[in-house]
Amino acid sequence: MIVGILGGGQLARMLALAGYPLGLKFVFLDPTADACAFPLGEALHGSYNDKHLLDRLAERADVVTYEFENVPTDAVQSLSRRVPVYPSPEALAFKQDRLREKLLFQELGIPTPLFHPVDTLRDLEEAATRLGLPMVLKTRSQGYDGKGQVVIEQTDDLKSVWEHMDKVPWMAEKYVAFVREVSAIAVRSRRGETAFYALAENIHRHGILHLSRSCPRDPMASLARQYAERLLTRLDYVGVLALELFQVGDGLLANEFAPRVHNSGHWTIEGTETSQFENHLRSILGLPLGSTAAVGSVAMVNCIGDLPDPTRLLSLEGVHLHDYGKPTRPGRKVGHVTVRANDDKSLQARLDAVCELLKGSASKCFQ
Amino acid sequence: MIVGILGGGQLARMLALAGYPLGLKFVFLDPTADACAFPLGEALHGSYNDKHLLDRLAERADVVTYEFENVPTDAVQSLSRRVPVYPSPEALAFKQDRLREKLLFQELGIPTPLFHPVDTLRDLEEAATRLGLPMVLKTRSQGYDGKGQVVIEQTDDLKSVWEHMDKVPWMAEKYVAFVREVSAIAVRSRRGETAFYALAENIHRHGILHLSRSCPRDPMASLARQYAERLLTRLDYVGVLALELFQVGDGLLANEFAPRVHNSGHWTIEGTETSQFENHLRSILGLPLGSTAAVGSVAMVNCIGDLPDPTRLLSLEGVHLHDYGKPTRPGRKVGHVTVRANDDKSLQARLDAVCELLKGSASKCFQ
Repeated sequence: MIVGILGGGQLARMLALAGYPLGLKFVFLDPTADACAFPLGEALHGSYNDKHLLDRLAERADVVTYEFENVPTDAVQSLSRRVPVYPSPEALAFKQDRLREKLLFQELGIPTPLFHPVDTLRDLEEAATRLGLPMVLKTRSQGYDGKGQVVIEQTDDLKSVWEHMDKVPWMAEKYVAFVREVSAIAVRSRRGETAFYALAENIHRHGILHLSRSCPRDPMASLARQYAERLLTRLDYVGVLALELFQVGDGLLANEFAPRVHNSGHWTIEGTETSQFENHLRSILGLPLGSTAAVGSVAMVNCIGDLPDPTRLLSLEGVHLHDYGKPTRPGRKVGHVTVRANDDKSLQARLDAVCELLKGSASKCFQ
Repeated sequence: MIVGILGGGQLARMLALAGYPLGLKFVFLDPTADACAFPLGEALHGSYNDKHLLDRLAERADVVTYEFENVPTDAVQSLSRRVPVYPSPEALAFKQDRLREKLLFQELGIPTPLFHPVDTLRDLEEAATRLGLPMVLKTRSQGYDGKGQVVIEQTDDLKSVWEHMDKVPWMAEKYVAFVREVSAIAVRSRRGETAFYALAENIHRHGILHLSRSCPRDPMASLARQYAERLLTRLDYVGVLALELFQVGDGLLANEFAPRVHNSGHWTIEGTETSQFENHLRSILGLPLGSTAAVGSVAMVNCIGDLPDPTRLLSLEGVHLHDYGKPTRPGRKVGHVTVRANDDKSLQARLDAVCELLKGSASKCFQ
């Protein structure tokens, strides 16, 4: 069986690493010449809209998936007429517009921060009145890792901010003073089977996920799972889905979902019986899902901009390096480190040691 | 960094799967056109003696290793003059002649079954007298998985067996009525650091390893480790080394060693903190070795000839499929299944379920 993946970044790379033991092969389409998944399968280098390459992908692949949500809808639609594509183009469409996404949450009774669509300065002013300040402006599409986001703190700034904003559809969201951010990683297979990973607690820095820790006995897990389950069912979803939530008091507000394997689930590689990558593949192939049971205590730290010295890192206990094989660049995710231990106390000590080491690199640790 | 591997079979494939997260790339040389590691790196298809391909390998690779010991010594020697090769050609040379191998064991005070070199019918008769019958005849080189082995049960058979034997150097070994076979998987790095995995207990069928189980508290572990350590030191060894031993009474007799990652260590992928594949790579790159601590109770079953139905297999608890992506063929290792659990009792139940399933395929289970 050959799996086609739109995108050839680290998520595609980790899908392939999980897929070879299942006997799978891979074909990747990516506009980047040195996409880091390319060495792991057949590389189709070019635009997502390149008809010739999409033809080749459809011919080669038995099933197609994608590693990020900003792939052109047309490309996914046209592929899905020729080869099964999971998650479905319908699920993807909800994700490609933040307004539709938030309305979907509303429809399913999943609470969200207050929001207001913004297409004009007048909309922006209305949003400020309705939501109060500070508020966060996000582009309705194409944003990721904090890109395409603006925070407005004062009414006086509305006009000047608007003047500098790209004239694309925006959405304003009430700035939420959350206790913490968590994410629910869920998976649903072609056979309708579902599985849920332990809730992950996430710490961001400059809008980029920095640290994610598995919380197997989290009091918010059951609520998060209910919300994720509603999405899976409503979308007749197939694949891994990540639901990011803000905890405010004892409640959860949905921030966004990702129709794919997710950075806040990377600790599942060493920290669970079956990783999110393997379960994503199992789900889109119609195979039984694997156990999501914890294997020890686990957390993950992203390497942003550069990687720590491998000799120093690998001399630490319980540490697993994931070097994505990407050229380093400030602000870029170039790898992650999973830290595992038999119990939470040992985990914290090991995590402290990793964070101490990362202080010397651009990937500083904030706990 | 690029790692060159002589051989592109499942061991090379699993080395690559362990190496990508370390940021490595791979180049494989193999005479088989569809070698199962080829999709995971640059494929050099041709003879191990092909000067052009060896040149290419030496140019591309920062370090070279091999996945089986029957590679031509000349090829390894010539490569080692241009690029670091681990384990060293000297270690490999001991392995390429069973007589030298056994004499090395003797030199190191590692007990072995009685043996006798056989080049003539007269040698064969002498061997029978000295060792007693039954005895096992093995070719001094190029044997693996029980190939190139003959058991002689009766004195009357000596002459007729000799007439049908290839006229290559042989070695006779006393047939040992062993309690069980175990293997010690050890690793030593370029920096001289060593690490040892839990002893593995192995069950063979028709000369091919069938089942291997990790025995973390085995009473023979300390002795096996001592023997392995002597080999590592004597050979100034770099890489993973597997030492196969027969337990006879309370003692151990060395059967053979393999200068490479080994089938009886495949359970280290899910069953230890750092797999034999990752530690082999760390060792040849001069990186710190990773912990060999157990992660749960674990065993491995080989899939010989064909693979079980993936839907049925993957519906079982604690099961990890490793499909090597090879065409099926009777007697061929085409994959393995790792079974893991939190304790030995659960492991046994899970293993029973896997073996029950494999009964339906050619990969029958014998425990």
